[in-house]
Amino acid sequence: MILSLLLAAAPLQATPPSPAVTPADPIEADWRTIPDDELLVMTLASGKQVIIRLAPRFAPAHVSNVRTLAHARWWDDASVYRVQENWVAQWGDATEKKPLPAGVTDRPAPEFGIAAFDPAVRMTRADPYSTASGITADGWPIATNGRQAWLTHCYGMVGVARDALPSTGSGAELFTPIGQSARRLDRNYTVVGRIVEGMGYLSGLPRSDAPMGVYATPGERTGIVSVRLASDMPAAERPHFQYRAADNPRFAAAVTRRENPDAPMVSLGGAAVCDVLPAVRRRP
Amino acid sequence: MILSLLLAAAPLQATPPSPAVTPADPIEADWRTIPDDELLVMTLASGKQVIIRLAPRFAPAHVSNVRTLAHARWWDDASVYRVQENWVAQWGDATEKKPLPAGVTDRPAPEFGIAAFDPAVRMTRADPYSTASGITADGWPIATNGRQAWLTHCYGMVGVARDALPSTGSGAELFTPIGQSARRLDRNYTVVGRIVEGMGYLSGLPRSDAPMGVYATPGERTGIVSVRLASDMPAAERPHFQYRAADNPRFAAAVTRRENPDAPMVSLGGAAVCDVLPAVRRRP
Repeated sequence: MILSLLLAAAPLQATPPSPAVTPADPIEADWRTIPDDELLVMTLASGKQVIIRLAPRFAPAHVSNVRTLAHARWWDDASVYRVQENWVAQWGDATEKKPLPAGVTDRPAPEFGIAAFDPAVRMTRADPYSTASGITADGWPIATNGRQAWLTHCYGMVGVARDALPSTGSGAELFTPIGQSARRLDRNYTVVGRIVEGMGYLSGLPRSDAPMGVYATPGERTGIVSVRLASDMPAAERPHFQYRAADNPRFAAAVTRRENPDAPMVSLGGAAVCDVLPAVRRRP
Repeated sequence: MILSLLLAAAPLQATPPSPAVTPADPIEADWRTIPDDELLVMTLASGKQVIIRLAPRFAPAHVSNVRTLAHARWWDDASVYRVQENWVAQWGDATEKKPLPAGVTDRPAPEFGIAAFDPAVRMTRADPYSTASGITADGWPIATNGRQAWLTHCYGMVGVARDALPSTGSGAELFTPIGQSARRLDRNYTVVGRIVEGMGYLSGLPRSDAPMGVYATPGERTGIVSVRLASDMPAAERPHFQYRAADNPRFAAAVTRRENPDAPMVSLGGAAVCDVLPAVRRRP
């Protein structure tokens, strides 16, 4: 009874052989390096690491803040202080009073939107939150309503927590959706990245029943030992990651296959953009 | 920075006061009792309980099996043996070899679909997996392609694991989506219910990196002490639950508000059916 679920789960996330064995499998050239200064390594008290790919192309001011915060070691001894069931895990300074380091702009201009809707692969069907969506050449999920475009709040994307609208946060407090994708936050919160490894160390944390899922006691929090840009780490310790690019017919075929899986699975004719996020792997 | 996320998260799941204070809040009459024989109480080794509302109206043969399995105490000493990140948690007999009790039909006719698309509240926009979707009067998420209708695999719904298509399982092995809603399983798997309390005790379990997320060692599994129909429990121990009915203007207003939240939140004009599942509460 396990096997069939595997078949449904595996395609886009698996690390395939190279060269491509089906038209939907990547070739080596489809794997592109994520620059060291676009990788954030968050080490939890357990020693487990959560790796975040940053999106400076889409949220330059907030990513600049995140880089400065990491460089200043501002998150050392921070914590995951909020885990709300079917909503978000949030981390940073639980007191929300720790001063920001020099070079961090508090409440920069919102970066809820992006410059253009230019996916390399477009989803066949619209979704309830947009008129069109797709994956950019460099692997990011985007959507549009025909007037604006934005990065989508898929499961595992990283958003910037903040006070009242329409202001935006600094990037010191971050969150990730841990249930049904939080698409209703699109255009309301700035997206700065995506968790590309270790998501389970956040999504698997104990939920809090307290208001908003904020742990009622400090003892419930998960400690953060450090958050570092890979480019700030000694060369020998740096992880290296690659994303699967979407600017090629192999990825397009993979999306088509997700939308129309092989029989005897029923072909649904469409899929949500959050269902086709490109695979990311450690550099072989 | 926490407050604004609360505002986005709370509306449909909160237990509101009565009488209604806004047009989107329920009145007492909107809360309807879930019958004792439609409530399944799964007690984990930790003592924590996961409560499942069954859907006999939509999957009568499989729910009949589930009731027989519970009555026969077949799941006592079973386990949650599979937790795959951003996919499913699955439970039952990890060996998949334990004989089924008398009265359980192995592989009954599939119940992937339901008789009619008759939502009490219809979502404004289509989603990539269907041409229309909505919530039935009795609180279930359904969708249609104009020819067939089905219960949707939202986060927290309970599906029947099985072997190869187009067969269906008995109901002895069950799963629930623990990440992005698994809508691509719609019409491929039979849905028998929804987790209405304690979902976090499954979604918060440690992920397995082994193939398909099946724990590599028995020690990783989460033990199941018992699974009982509320109607099989001593009266003094039975939990009592109510769902928020959708056959009223208050629920319709709540859906409209989710699709078009109050300013300064940006109105998106639509929402996914998995984003508006009706609240369920313990009987006051």
